[in-house]
Formats: sequence, C-alpha cells, structure tokens
Amino acid sequence: MASDIEIARAATLKPLPEIAAALDIPADALEPYGKTKAKLSGDYIATLKDRPRGKLILVTAISPTPAGEGKTTTTVGLGDGLARIGRKVAICLREPSLGPCFGMKGGAAGGGRAQAVPMDDINLHFTGDFHAITAAHNLLAAMLDNHIHWGNELRIDTRRIALRRVLDVNDRALRAVVTGLGGPANGTPREAGFDITVASEVMAILCLASDLEDLQRRLGNIVVGERVDRSLVTARELGADGAMTVLLKDAFQPNLVQTLEHTPTFIHGGPFANIAHGCNSLVATDTALRLADYVVTEAGFGADLGAEKFFDIKCRKGGLSPSAAVLVATVRALKMNGGVEKGDLGVENVAAVERGCANLGRHIDNLKQFGVPLVVAINHFTADTEAELAAVKAFCAERGVEAVLATHWADGGAGTEALARSVAALADSGEADFAPLYDDDLTLVEKIETVARKIYRAGEVDIDKAARAQLERWQEAGHDRLPVCMAKTQYSFSSDPDQLGAPEGHVLKVREVRLSAGAGFVVAICGSIMTMPGLPRHPAALDIRLNEDGEIEGLF
Amino acid sequence: MASDIEIARAATLKPLPEIAAALDIPADALEPYGKTKAKLSGDYIATLKDRPRGKLILVTAISPTPAGEGKTTTTVGLGDGLARIGRKVAICLREPSLGPCFGMKGGAAGGGRAQAVPMDDINLHFTGDFHAITAAHNLLAAMLDNHIHWGNELRIDTRRIALRRVLDVNDRALRAVVTGLGGPANGTPREAGFDITVASEVMAILCLASDLEDLQRRLGNIVVGERVDRSLVTARELGADGAMTVLLKDAFQPNLVQTLEHTPTFIHGGPFANIAHGCNSLVATDTALRLADYVVTEAGFGADLGAEKFFDIKCRKGGLSPSAAVLVATVRALKMNGGVEKGDLGVENVAAVERGCANLGRHIDNLKQFGVPLVVAINHFTADTEAELAAVKAFCAERGVEAVLATHWADGGAGTEALARSVAALADSGEADFAPLYDDDLTLVEKIETVARKIYRAGEVDIDKAARAQLERWQEAGHDRLPVCMAKTQYSFSSDPDQLGAPEGHVLKVREVRLSAGAGFVVAICGSIMTMPGLPRHPAALDIRLNEDGEIEGLF
Repeated sequence: MASDIEIARAATLKPLPEIAAALDIPADALEPYGKTKAKLSGDYIATLKDRPRGKLILVTAISPTPAGEGKTTTTVGLGDGLARIGRKVAICLREPSLGPCFGMKGGAAGGGRAQAVPMDDINLHFTGDFHAITAAHNLLAAMLDNHIHWGNELRIDTRRIALRRVLDVNDRALRAVVTGLGGPANGTPREAGFDITVASEVMAILCLASDLEDLQRRLGNIVVGERVDRSLVTARELGADGAMTVLLKDAFQPNLVQTLEHTPTFIHGGPFANIAHGCNSLVATDTALRLADYVVTEAGFGADLGAEKFFDIKCRKGGLSPSAAVLVATVRALKMNGGVEKGDLGVENVAAVERGCANLGRHIDNLKQFGVPLVVAINHFTADTEAELAAVKAFCAERGVEAVLATHWADGGAGTEALARSVAALADSGEADFAPLYDDDLTLVEKIETVARKIYRAGEVDIDKAARAQLERWQEAGHDRLPVCMAKTQYSFSSDPDQLGAPEGHVLKVREVRLSAGAGFVVAICGSIMTMPGLPRHPAALDIRLNEDGEIEGLF
Repeated sequence: MASDIEIARAATLKPLPEIAAALDIPADALEPYGKTKAKLSGDYIATLKDRPRGKLILVTAISPTPAGEGKTTTTVGLGDGLARIGRKVAICLREPSLGPCFGMKGGAAGGGRAQAVPMDDINLHFTGDFHAITAAHNLLAAMLDNHIHWGNELRIDTRRIALRRVLDVNDRALRAVVTGLGGPANGTPREAGFDITVASEVMAILCLASDLEDLQRRLGNIVVGERVDRSLVTARELGADGAMTVLLKDAFQPNLVQTLEHTPTFIHGGPFANIAHGCNSLVATDTALRLADYVVTEAGFGADLGAEKFFDIKCRKGGLSPSAAVLVATVRALKMNGGVEKGDLGVENVAAVERGCANLGRHIDNLKQFGVPLVVAINHFTADTEAELAAVKAFCAERGVEAVLATHWADGGAGTEALARSVAALADSGEADFAPLYDDDLTLVEKIETVARKIYRAGEVDIDKAARAQLERWQEAGHDRLPVCMAKTQYSFSSDPDQLGAPEGHVLKVREVRLSAGAGFVVAICGSIMTMPGLPRHPAALDIRLNEDGEIEGLF
C-alpha cells in the first residue's frame, strides 16, 4: 500500500464551506487558512451555546506497545464509518507537535485510508496554534525574568521558579540550562530549562478554557514560582495575562478540516498526556457537540491514563457526559502484552494473545467504573490470523462486550461500518450513566489514592514526604477541589514500564507533585517523566524534504 | 487624533480578492489567511517571471533619532498617494517582530491615517512566517547538538559553534546561556545563546532567496561552526536543509494585505538592519514589480545603513534597478541632529534645523553616488513651524533636490499627492543610472573600506587583527565575491552614536566579522550590536489586553 503522505497527496479535498455545510455551519463562520483549513469564528461559536449537545464517543486503547494501536486512525475511521451509515458526525482530534514529527514518529493525523487532510499542513505549522502558545508562554517567561531584573518588587525567589520556557522541537540540550549569564545587563543567572510546547501549562489551559474570558482568568492563575516567603507568584501578578490572551485569541478558535472521506474534523489543541490531560480542546469538543449528532474523539495513551483524565478532568470541567467508549486493541499489541517480542509478531501465537487479553480485560473493567458502555474495536493488521482474532472476540464475549473487527487503515470508512453501527446503537441505547471516578471534595491525597487503587490496582500508594507536604499546603491554600492529573508511564498499569499485562498489588510511588493552577489540576508524577524529548540518532528530519515537484517527502 | 489601533479598527477593509484585482491577480492565486490576509501561491508567482518589471522606489531616511522619522508611515502614505493620482502601485514592507511589539515600541505597520491593515494581525502572528523561521532555525540547532550527542562524526568543535538559537521575544536572560546541563542524557554542556528571530540568518536567507530551490541551497550553506581542524561545518552537512525548507515553504510565499485606502501591500520578511540587510523579501519585491507599474518599498534605519544595504545587497543579488529614492526627514529629527534635546523639540529653532540639515545633505550626497535620483519628503508633525519648514526646503533647493511636505499621518493619501506626483515624475524621467557602490571583485577588506570611506566618510578603517585574519581566510575559502553587511550604530555616520550631524574623518573600528554564507554576505561589526533586545522596566505587554468587546487595546 502507498505511504500515508502518498495517499493524502492523491486525495481530492472538498472546499471547506462544503465540509462545514454538512454540519450546517454557514460559510461566513469560517476564517480560512488556505483553502482546506479554517477556524470557526468566536462570534459564531457564541451563537451555539444554547443548542442541545449530540452524543459523545470516546476512542481509547489498551496499554500502548511499540507495535502500535492506531487510536487516531480508528477515531478517523469510525467517524467516516458513522458518516457512511448516514449519521451527522464530527471528529475531534489533537493537533500534532512538530517535535516528534521531525524526530521519531512522523505525522499524527491518522494513517492509511483513515486520515485527516491536508496531512502535511496539519503535521507542520497547521494554523499556527502551537506557535501562538510558544509565544505566549515565552512572553510570560521573559516578563518574569524582566521583573526580577528591574528590582524584583514581588520578591520572587530565583531558586524556586516553577515556570520553564518552551519550544516545539525535540532538543535535549535545552532540558537543563543556566540563563542570565554575561553580566548584569543580561539579567540574573539561574537554573532554568525548556519543555516541548505541548507540555506547556498554556497548552492545557487553552484546551480547558470555556471562552476568552475564562482563558485570561486561567492564564492569570498560572503559578510561576514562589516568593522568598514561599507564597505563590502568579502570571496575573506579573501583568502578563492580558498580553498572553491577545497572543492566543486566534489560537483559541477551533480548526476545521476533513478526512479523506470528507467527514468534518476539528483538530484543536494537543496537551501532553502525562503532565497534562492529553485531550483536544474543550471548546472544539463542545462546539462539535452542538453541531453534530455524534462526536468521535480520542484521548492520549491507554485508557488507564487517557480515558481516566478525559473523564475526570475534561468531562468534569466541561460538564460533558459521554455516551459510549471504543476500546482499541490490536492483535499485535495484545501479543506484546502477552510476552512476545516485537521481532516475533509476525508468527501466529494464540496463547500470547490470550495472555495479553488480561490487559484488555482490565481496561474494560476500568471503563465500566465510569458508567460508560463500550465496544472493543480490533484494529486489523494484515498479519493477524483468524485464530488470533477469534481469541480476542471470545475473550470479549465472555465479558459481555462486543468486539468488532475494523479495517479502516486499508479500507477507510467502508472498513468501519459494522463498528459504526455497534457504536451508534450503544450510544443511542441510553445505557450510559457517566460519573467521574471521585468527587471534588476528596482531599488531593485521597484523589491520587483513588485513581491508583481503582484504575491502576496498586496495593500501596507511596507519596514522597516533601510531595505530601506540598499537597497539604495546596490543599489549605484553596486548591483542594482540583482533580489530579497522573503522570505515569503509559506502558504499564504500574509505574514500571516493563510490567505489561495486568499487574496488581504494586506500589505506586509519587515522587513529585506540580500545581497547574491555571489549567486547574494537580500533577502527581510517578517515575521519571520527560517533558523535552530528544532527537534519535537518525532523526526523521534527515529524510524530510521537498521533491522535484515541490511535494513533501519523508512525512509518514 | 485617535490612536493607530483605533483608526485601524474603525477602517472598513475590502475583501482581499478586490485588492488583488487592482494588480490583476486572479482570486485563485490567493491562499487566504482569514478574510483580510493572503499569501500568493508559488504556482502563480512562477507564471510572472517573464513579465517586465515596474519602477522601484526606495523610501529611506536621515539618521534616526528618538524623535521618529516615519519611514514606514511615509512608504504607506506615498503608496496611497500614487494610487490617488491614478497609478498602478504596490507597497512592499517588512513584517513586524513580536519582540519590540510587546517591549518598547508597539506596532510597526505605519501610523495615523497611513497604515497597513489589519494592523493587529500584522503586528501579532500575521501569517506565521516568523514562527516558521523560528522553527526552522531551532530545528537546525537541535540537529547540531544532536549530531554531537550521538558521536560527533563531523568532529565539530563545541567551543567554536557559530549558530545560536532564536525566539521572537525580547528576553535578555537568553543572550548568554549554558545548555546541555544535567548529565550525559542531556547532551554536551557548552556556551550558547539566543537571538531574536529577526536576527536569524534564516530570516536573511528567506528575504534573499529567489525560489524554493535557491532557498534550500542557501539554507544548506549556513555555517554552523568549525571542526576541530578549523574547517567550516554547514547545515547541509548536518542534513538539515531539506527539513528546514519544508518548514519554510509557506513562509516563503509573499503576504498580501491593504492600506487603510485599499492600496495593495506586500508585507514579507523582516531581517535585522544591522547584522542583516534590513529589507523586505526579494520575492515580494520582485513579484510586486511584475504586477505594478510603481513599487514603493523601504529599508531599515537611515540611508547610510538601510539604503546602502538595499542597493549593495538586495538590488545586487536580485538584479533590481531602482528608479527613484525618497529621503524622509522630519523637522524634529533635523533639530535633534542640530543639537536640540528631545524635551525642547516643541520650541521653534530654525538655527538648529539648519545645523541638522548637514545630516540630510550627507545622505543626499550618498544617494547620488548610487545613481538614483531623489526627492526629500518632509514628514509633517503638527508642531513644525513655517520658518522651520522653509529652512529645510531652502537647504534642499540649494542642493538641487526637491523637498515636498507630506501630511499622510493626518490626511492619508490626500496628504501625499504632491509627493506622489514628484516621485512619479522622477521615476518616469529615466534619470536613474543605478550601480552598486563597489564591484564583486574587490577584496572583502576593500569592500568594507569602500563603504566606510564613501558612505560614512571615515578617515581611517581599523579592522581588528583577528577579524582581518578571519576575512583573509574566508577570502581564500571562496567567499571573496560576497558583499559586506555593515553592523554599525544607526544614530551616526560614525560608530559613535553620540556624533550626530555629519561627522567625517573619524576612525571606524571593525571589531568582529561574521560569515553569513547562506544569506550571502559577510557581516562587519563596528561597535556593540544587540541581537537579543531586553524588555524595558514597563514593557508594552503590561498594557496590551482584550477589552470587553474582545478588541485589542494597547497596541499602538
């Protein structure tokens, strides 16, 4: 089969007003960015707020492995499938980051015949949202150091600055730096560092704010560090919230594109799935729900991280009530969860699939805890055997969950019609009775423990002493009602990436906690979390170039 | 009078296809970015290459003072004036940088009733060009450190790395940093630093490349540092040129907007006027010349820097032949050149104006050396007195140069009709006989000396010994035919910013030289040049915010 970019390039895109018309969006509500990308105007979005919401469908997955699960691809494929069976549907995805695009993994707009297009633009600068976030974040950082330079009236402790800078690039050399060198004209020397833009709290804020006013309020709440007396200093005290909002006013508007099959697709925001909540923007999802009868969206990593945060952070904050979930599994990933090495995936191994189904089962049980009914989507790979597929289906049937084979990668929406019918029936059934996992009024420590015990099945939660003290101080400082955002390896239910399958009774160590007061959550970090990736020995950038026809090669 | 942003906000913009139609640009050649900004497609631009060029008019100025000269404002006003007298005209401007916008000076799209609009968008992210340059530059930097991290096959000397990183923000704390701290997983510790994006060589390259192929060739030529054996390492050797070109492919296309009076305006590129050449992109200027009968453009700083580089770098590289120049002067700036302090500018002082005219006279003489006929435009300020204006006119008349009063700030194009008639007549006269100041085959040292003696009227040129050795090595390495780009204070013909008026016989010290092999010039640095500005005590960002109607306040 052709590569993703070859398929995308060969596609004939429809003019965006036609795509918008499928959702009854008038053409003048579109702010065009080129001919095949647009933002929805804020004025138009404001007119939608009293409309009823359609049904929200979350696509999540088993624990990821190097074999790949295809969550975005399935989200796109399911959207196309729903459109094919005549439903009024919109898809909501996250925006890709330039860093991994030029580093390890290539594009992130789906794959095969289930892609959002124009895939090259989406994977590159798109409509500039991430650049706006970078600019707003770094303006705050510059204003912080500038405040210190001109006398430090706020008495900020330069040893206790929480705010780092951000760039949308994989650059390990920027993880730990010393800034302000070269004498008094260049500011105050201090330890600092850069994260990748998707790890910026500004990104998480953009994805959780309800409108521009709420955006500014949240930006003002960002805690940049501590004073000498240990009290917290906010972006508002630095006077940065207004200018940051101005820089973000266009980025805040959702972007509309289409799939290869012309299904309307909102791609907006892309916060990290570990130190943030890993979902596309609330404003995009809410807008889509006001326009479509069915909205298909995704969350980062496996269901233990992505779905939990989607439910406990995004749905809680946005008052969203999902009607159904789709749990994506692949035979390959189940085999790896069953102990097979990547090199041996090509060999039929039903026993390994059956062992790996323990991981699938755990995710099924977890999703049920939120009151959301689910379907398992088996994302088909060409090497899957009948016996392996039958093993997955049998496992699901035993649990009372339907498992549907989906061939969207090869067949587009034609390969997800069966899945779409099952999902639509489930969403229409009224079976959903969504509730977040824990109440706002549990303590921060209790919230961490609840997720650890109910979702990760930890036997014990070991919160570092300093982190526990920090949590208590935030608890008393009025941040007690915030949800928690767990930063844990995505490869295991435990904090040990090598414990595949469905481990239980393990000790979850919380080493560090961070307050994202603007985004509105407390991050609990279990294990080491990378917020600035590095480039591999042979970065993808080496192979990305324009060919003789001016077309992009090497994005895949 | 209302503020710039109030005037801009009150304006009724025409749909961009109508603006384009004034230059016979078909609507499908436009890639829209919102409703009032667009890029011209590369395919369309390629169709223009055999058309004859219109007449090119450079707007330059006397030596700048804190009083302000209004070069961009006059460029816009003159364009509007030419349109009013029935000429087919296009304006070419540089893109503003976010750094100064949130720092000291506010917007940079003209002022009063002579503005390019939408001024808020132009001053903020516009069409994302600067962000693309930031991304491309920093990808190269990441690939450089990554190469070293994975074994440093090219044997790059980490003590002799020339490439810095860039951000479009005023942030003094980033001028001098140490990167790569925190252990082996984070790369190799070394001294590094950030410049503002406009100072990136990638910016200069984007502004001098003729097409995407030339862009990639030039990007590949960027010298990132030296090997242990002192030989030069290029971006091409790091394999970054292809990916950088992909990141810049949209940014390379010129942007079209309009003035308040709907004159077509290309705003594209904005390299520093000290370590680079300070003009808008060659591709925008060339495109405008193929479409319009008259193209009005500007160059940074005073004529000693801006016009010289425009002629010796941009016109030389692009084969452009300007038909006329407009030298902008203000009574206020002449007074300051005549020794008046800023606080005393409100008082009539004809003698100071007459003394200050020495500066004007020197610039007139200099422009004549290039064979370009000129008009002096007196940019009117309300406090100017009749006697002061008469003094300027009398001075110019003595030199055989017409001086025309222009009131575009208050009156828009109606205030520049007389100027437009004079300029059009001059451009039509065939009087121009343009030639650069020096030939390609002078040595690099001779080129520096030529500019210093003929334009700055230095009595002596003192090139630091190490810099001279460096020039000789580049001379021998095949860079001998490059023009020189002088980085000197803009406030004086000398390298001492306090020597106003028309100093001569001074000693020009060249302290440092830099090779911009991709852009295609050698930078000679005289005095200290700031490539990363800082924020002032009260940055403009503190006052920039959205008002209750969602409109931007504080950009001025």
